[in-house]
Amino acid sequence: MSLPSYVGKMKGKHFLNTNDFTQEEIKEILEAARDLRKKFRERTPTNYLPGRTLFMLFYNRSLRTRNSFEAGIYQLGGHAHFLSPQDVYTPTLPEDMVPYQTESIADVARVLSRYGDAIAIRIYGDAAKWHIGRGHRVIQEFAKWSSIPVLNMEDDVYHPFQALADIMAITDVAPNPRGKKFVVSYAYSGGLKPLAVPQSCILIGTQFGMDVVLAHPPGFELEDHVIQAAKENADRYGGSFEIVHDMREAFEGADFVYPKAWSPKKFFPPYNSKVDKDGAKEYQNKFQNWICTQELMDLTNKGKYMHCGPADRGQEVIDEVIDNPEYSLYFEQAENRLHVQKAVMAMVLP
Amino acid sequence: MSLPSYVGKMKGKHFLNTNDFTQEEIKEILEAARDLRKKFRERTPTNYLPGRTLFMLFYNRSLRTRNSFEAGIYQLGGHAHFLSPQDVYTPTLPEDMVPYQTESIADVARVLSRYGDAIAIRIYGDAAKWHIGRGHRVIQEFAKWSSIPVLNMEDDVYHPFQALADIMAITDVAPNPRGKKFVVSYAYSGGLKPLAVPQSCILIGTQFGMDVVLAHPPGFELEDHVIQAAKENADRYGGSFEIVHDMREAFEGADFVYPKAWSPKKFFPPYNSKVDKDGAKEYQNKFQNWICTQELMDLTNKGKYMHCGPADRGQEVIDEVIDNPEYSLYFEQAENRLHVQKAVMAMVLP
Amino acid sequence: MSLPSYVGKMKGKHFLNTNDFTQEEIKEILEAARDLRKKFRERTPTNYLPGRTLFMLFYNRSLRTRNSFEAGIYQLGGHAHFLSPQDVYTPTLPEDMVPYQTESIADVARVLSRYGDAIAIRIYGDAAKWHIGRGHRVIQEFAKWSSIPVLNMEDDVYHPFQALADIMAITDVAPNPRGKKFVVSYAYSGGLKPLAVPQSCILIGTQFGMDVVLAHPPGFELEDHVIQAAKENADRYGGSFEIVHDMREAFEGADFVYPKAWSPKKFFPPYNSKVDKDGAKEYQNKFQNWICTQELMDLTNKGKYMHCGPADRGQEVIDEVIDNPEYSLYFEQAENRLHVQKAVMAMVLP
Repeated sequence: MSLPSYVGKMKGKHFLNTNDFTQEEIKEILEAARDLRKKFRERTPTNYLPGRTLFMLFYNRSLRTRNSFEAGIYQLGGHAHFLSPQDVYTPTLPEDMVPYQTESIADVARVLSRYGDAIAIRIYGDAAKWHIGRGHRVIQEFAKWSSIPVLNMEDDVYHPFQALADIMAITDVAPNPRGKKFVVSYAYSGGLKPLAVPQSCILIGTQFGMDVVLAHPPGFELEDHVIQAAKENADRYGGSFEIVHDMREAFEGADFVYPKAWSPKKFFPPYNSKVDKDGAKEYQNKFQNWICTQELMDLTNKGKYMHCGPADRGQEVIDEVIDNPEYSLYFEQAENRLHVQKAVMAMVLP
Repeated sequence: MSLPSYVGKMKGKHFLNTNDFTQEEIKEILEAARDLRKKFRERTPTNYLPGRTLFMLFYNRSLRTRNSFEAGIYQLGGHAHFLSPQDVYTPTLPEDMVPYQTESIADVARVLSRYGDAIAIRIYGDAAKWHIGRGHRVIQEFAKWSSIPVLNMEDDVYHPFQALADIMAITDVAPNPRGKKFVVSYAYSGGLKPLAVPQSCILIGTQFGMDVVLAHPPGFELEDHVIQAAKENADRYGGSFEIVHDMREAFEGADFVYPKAWSPKKFFPPYNSKVDKDGAKEYQNKFQNWICTQELMDLTNKGKYMHCGPADRGQEVIDEVIDNPEYSLYFEQAENRLHVQKAVMAMVLP
Repeated sequence: MSLPSYVGKMKGKHFLNTNDFTQEEIKEILEAARDLRKKFRERTPTNYLPGRTLFMLFYNRSLRTRNSFEAGIYQLGGHAHFLSPQDVYTPTLPEDMVPYQTESIADVARVLSRYGDAIAIRIYGDAAKWHIGRGHRVIQEFAKWSSIPVLNMEDDVYHPFQALADIMAITDVAPNPRGKKFVVSYAYSGGLKPLAVPQSCILIGTQFGMDVVLAHPPGFELEDHVIQAAKENADRYGGSFEIVHDMREAFEGADFVYPKAWSPKKFFPPYNSKVDKDGAKEYQNKFQNWICTQELMDLTNKGKYMHCGPADRGQEVIDEVIDNPEYSLYFEQAENRLHVQKAVMAMVLP
């Protein structure tokens, strides 16, 4: 089988954050993803990674991520190991070691590097002790010690593969998204959710020169370093970045809307002295009117509805919106996870 | 590799209940299963489903089902994902949703349909809240929303792959089983067990024109709609269906006996106002004399002993019976699970 | 693909203890492992076991063993099932059966033998009720009933694949290890650990004619039958076997040192009337000075440091020793697990 030119093109690179890559590199990934999507639908074999092993380490539940990675590596001719932290000696940062139950990430990363070809990790929320950034540090620690690529399957700062799937869905609709209005909005949920999706969303939107509007109630600010990076993206790539505090105002004339819950960082370290889950939930509960309705969709410029899934139906969005095939990209985004992940694996695996 | 004619012959069909298929179709499945068994034993490769992914969702424990499906799809060139409900966001009926822990079956089925090729589900007992029929409704809900085949790995009404393995074992012994006496009998266990196996047993037996005798103590009635379907099968396929309440009477002159525990439905909704596990166990305990002994086997017409496994040794059956290679089909039935499941997958997967 | 001569050379054999094999046979395994290592590093395909299924049953946590077996069988063209005891009906010895939760090993072994090609098992410690030898009996029971090879992934008596990886690492450094001083020493850990590693270590060292020195504080004696077997090995293969009770004395002039924790057997049945975990820990805590330091390493003959992993850093060994690439074989031993296991699978699988 002759290999497409993208196979091995970024050999050995970690994939922790879309913003570690240039717009040009992200476009190459999308091109590869579209080639793989076409072949998947035609059932053209794509055994580009025979004999390759992907280690998947899930500290959190997953439907889309787990199944798209496991099916994806298999469709490329490889094989994935599904690892729960409790099945192995839980890989742990130096300061969190518990004798006889944990093993240092340094050791785990170096051992796995001897057996296979990439390590993919999901860790946020309880698994990262709700200390924002600790999940990302776990993944960085893996990247530091691993001699094979480390893939971020969502931590408490970034969800880069979701962002790839999202920009693929956007550019399916608008091949040149520059100047399109992309609204990343808070939407209510009673549950506690990480910042990873909205943060990766504003990064990928600005990286593609879109007019990105971040909408949220007071207290739901994203992290400063991400806001800063989004602004720099906007400057570099010719788009814009703006923050508003009104959902209706944001939706006005939007081409793409992405209403999605996250939890206010001010209740969690390092932005608070302690983890205050109850305080966060109580505060969130004041904003139950941040729900995506048809009335809001009607304010848009025939805008597309987006969500990473799983959506909290009845809280973040009403069924009639998310299930409306006219403008909901919900299942396309989910499907694209498969294709973009296969693209990145084909490009970075050794 | 040239494909046998059965590959793809029922492309896209769900497999929820043997009675959804004609006798002719079941015979085609058995023919395929025998072809696959022969090739398995010869180690002839059978890569008929390259690149295909099977999602296996187990709400309950499993030895035979899990290992035969996972090995089976691999032997066909495909790959299975083993999914525990706690590893994904538990797929759930609309009325059972728990925010932030569950995801609607509608969404899960539609997402998985984008990544792979079939969804196999096991759910009964506690996982279906002991409301008889709720497990089957979960599987029906998957079938409603999935655009890829759904396979019933045992719910609280049917266990169709077990029935296929059983009729394969029967027709190995009696190629034309019409008129053979097939006894599906209650046997004691202290544990709570679903109705799925005896219900699928009487359906498959009558579908093959056997003289099916259902034997149980009072209070262990199967569901009316299944009894009705068995009677219709008997009429259509030239066999008979009879219910008796005495194990000795039933075993008299039998060609095949299938003594197996199930729990009395009258202690569970919708046949009771509440789930009464203690009541069921207390009632069951009155029937500890319903155990398959050599003395009972001696009443048969050199009958074969059958059980789906795992058998509660010392309760349902004595070791000397189940381990007697002269007449016990126990391990053949277990092995046949592999072959019939491969046959159905080869026929229905896209 | 033409098959190397070692494929199938020990077809059908169980692999429970290195001492069940001759030195000549172990050398053949190492030769196969080196061939497989070379091909792994070159990415030469080694699909010697197409269509073969390995059932892996883990009663305990595992990083190295699980990932090296799962990646290993895949690299040989086969597929592994990862089975947790709670996902199946827990396979159990006759005396430990719990109705409706367990299934007899006799039945499990016979069923799995119908579906696939080998059964690998890990069981020790809590999973074997800390009755030393019970884990090994579980594996022997599987071997008794299974018609496919059974592989010991570590029980409470032996860890044979670790011993193979260790002797591979040793013979990489010293192709003829006869007469080399190999120190298997107790090292402190606060955790409870089985005897399997030191016992398999002294067996493999003496089987290769090494001068094996076992060092431990009083009360940490290994099992008599293993000591006896090590002495017989030493006699047969021209090495020596000695026991000392001082770490410094042992390290003097050593070529290889293997400081590793185990728990004193006198606190556990059958060497004690009851399981006394607290007593064992309290006793262990007296020996915190048994730690591998640079000062100890300086006493050796430029000796190599060895450990099976995971090491309890700060208890068994200091970071500066285990992470010193000049003399630490830690990651080589871990990597060798992959190669020796592939070798044995290629040789014994049907």
